[in-house]
Amino acid sequence: MVLCADEPLPLDSGARIGPVEVAYHTYGTLNADRSNAVLVCHALTGDQYAVLPHPVTGKPGWWANLIGPGKVVDTDAYFVICANVLGGCMGTTGPKSENPATGRPYMLDFPVITIGDMVRLHVRLLDHLGIDRVFAAIGGSMGGMQVLQLASAFPERVFCALPIAACARYSAQNIAFDEVGRQAIMADPEWCGGEYLLEDRVPHKGLAVARMAAHITYLSEAALTRKFGRKLQAREKIGFGFDADFEVESYLRHQGSTFVERFDANSYLYITRAMDYFDLPGEHGGNLANAFRGTPVKFCVISFTSDWLFPTRDSQAIVRALNAAAASVSFVEVQSDKGHDAFLLDEPELHDTIRGFLDGMADRAGLDLSREAR
Amino acid sequence: MVLCADEPLPLDSGARIGPVEVAYHTYGTLNADRSNAVLVCHALTGDQYAVLPHPVTGKPGWWANLIGPGKVVDTDAYFVICANVLGGCMGTTGPKSENPATGRPYMLDFPVITIGDMVRLHVRLLDHLGIDRVFAAIGGSMGGMQVLQLASAFPERVFCALPIAACARYSAQNIAFDEVGRQAIMADPEWCGGEYLLEDRVPHKGLAVARMAAHITYLSEAALTRKFGRKLQAREKIGFGFDADFEVESYLRHQGSTFVERFDANSYLYITRAMDYFDLPGEHGGNLANAFRGTPVKFCVISFTSDWLFPTRDSQAIVRALNAAAASVSFVEVQSDKGHDAFLLDEPELHDTIRGFLDGMADRAGLDLSREAR
Repeated sequence: MVLCADEPLPLDSGARIGPVEVAYHTYGTLNADRSNAVLVCHALTGDQYAVLPHPVTGKPGWWANLIGPGKVVDTDAYFVICANVLGGCMGTTGPKSENPATGRPYMLDFPVITIGDMVRLHVRLLDHLGIDRVFAAIGGSMGGMQVLQLASAFPERVFCALPIAACARYSAQNIAFDEVGRQAIMADPEWCGGEYLLEDRVPHKGLAVARMAAHITYLSEAALTRKFGRKLQAREKIGFGFDADFEVESYLRHQGSTFVERFDANSYLYITRAMDYFDLPGEHGGNLANAFRGTPVKFCVISFTSDWLFPTRDSQAIVRALNAAAASVSFVEVQSDKGHDAFLLDEPELHDTIRGFLDGMADRAGLDLSREAR
Repeated sequence: MVLCADEPLPLDSGARIGPVEVAYHTYGTLNADRSNAVLVCHALTGDQYAVLPHPVTGKPGWWANLIGPGKVVDTDAYFVICANVLGGCMGTTGPKSENPATGRPYMLDFPVITIGDMVRLHVRLLDHLGIDRVFAAIGGSMGGMQVLQLASAFPERVFCALPIAACARYSAQNIAFDEVGRQAIMADPEWCGGEYLLEDRVPHKGLAVARMAAHITYLSEAALTRKFGRKLQAREKIGFGFDADFEVESYLRHQGSTFVERFDANSYLYITRAMDYFDLPGEHGGNLANAFRGTPVKFCVISFTSDWLFPTRDSQAIVRALNAAAASVSFVEVQSDKGHDAFLLDEPELHDTIRGFLDGMADRAGLDLSREAR
């Protein structure tokens, strides 16, 4: 579904953008008192296809293992909402959308946006759906940043929040990796100074290199070693050449080449920039606790032992701040050697943690999840 | 100085290359019994300018803090040799050298080489210099791999060996990062299928992206955070654009753009490939100890706590194998938060370790380092 809002959205940059469209999916049924909504926030290259197969790749939704009837986020009980972020390329207004001022795609005329802007747009979606408060907001990586931003800026709109494998302040190393990706895209002459859509060209190679570099950061060294090690790709001996000798090379090349079919290069620039700018303590006088003073939101913060992109210490900083703000918070560091991507995988400890927290919170919220209530 | 050898060098691939030139520098004086030589092996983007200022950048030699009169590697005592590796671009035969078969640069006609090939060429240089056995071989990163390969393949040519921040088997993650760099170079249309020299073009952008991605792996997250954090570049506020807002971005861009002035893109392809192929246990039936059985070489293995490119466990694997081979080995994990690049920096614990080991080994070798002996 697509929400079309005529009223311009004010942005952190001071610019305004409008009209704005939000592409979203819902699963399950909103109950009578509109109290069983779960907002699912997607990561950098995710989209609203959290459950349904992706229309380009045909692959199952990115969180189809977690969300569905009888699953951890049970669509027999909850009304699940997942929307493409502002700046995205799957239907929500982004750089490839038409700029009403020019009649051509925004491209680099799209305003630079923030995680805060993404969240404000999704609050508009909640308004449109008539949901005053979601029962839970959940997301991993950039999705977790949105969860934190939502809980901080709109504490009355969330009962409980699950930021997973996220951070409250984007690190120098993470900015550095984003910058490499952007430079790879902008180095591709097919990028055409951002105007490739007008030229009917696509910076495939640059975007693929960006994806390859980023993809390494999503995995742990242990996972790469277990999965690939030094295994050779369909050959007995090294080939003494620059073809993909090693499985890990052909895996990365595959990741790069399939990504470009489903993602817009300018969206990649804008969304990574939004992450670079994410600095919740910076927005609150340098003290993250100030972002959550007096918050009624109940938090469950989750990290993974082998995540080096958003390591456990990033989650610990969130937990410390929530404690300093006297917020209700539980924290689980999931043992996993799968790296940052563990949040997308079928990790039993992750799923048990989410299920337990949601069940407990549903009790605490007095949520009637019976079929009759819907 | 340049050694020109007419006899072709046999390569691990089965190919032969010749004639071969080796560009090298020496410092200090070889003593009468030719027993005070120290072979210094350089890393991926290093060269023979370990001490003298680099002719392109004008910057001090990459190990000028370590090597010199009265320094840790004391050129008043030792005869220091540092040669550009095979495949390099600073005078030793590499892809930009003239291919005698065609009269034009080798470019992609250059054979794919290995660390073993690099080492065999440097042993030829030792032959030329009349040095049967170097007192010490020392190197960091790929330099450390060469040290290990030399000690394994030519144990009679080395008295003691110092592999620093190195590994005996290149990991899947490291292959992955190399592959990203190569894809970035080959994605640049200025690379011209490897024949940019003929077209008078240079794949600046691709090589810069490769360098930027690699450079992140040379630093620790702690070092990036301490050095840059989220500090802004010559501005008070974020710029809501794609210029370098953050210092870490302009630092990386600078690293990329200065690198392309001094390095050949095809050399980058060949040398990273040589590293990918480095698998000393693989050469010895899967057991690294077999690479060192009965070795007379005395080892000092050094790693850094914050090095995530060649982490301490890589050095520990070397030490375990040396122990299993009953070799003489000491191991120091240097406390440093500077990451892989610590081996190039003025790290007191590193310098003390090297000095202590060399002094002890000089005693053990009965090396007369007095002025009169030279």
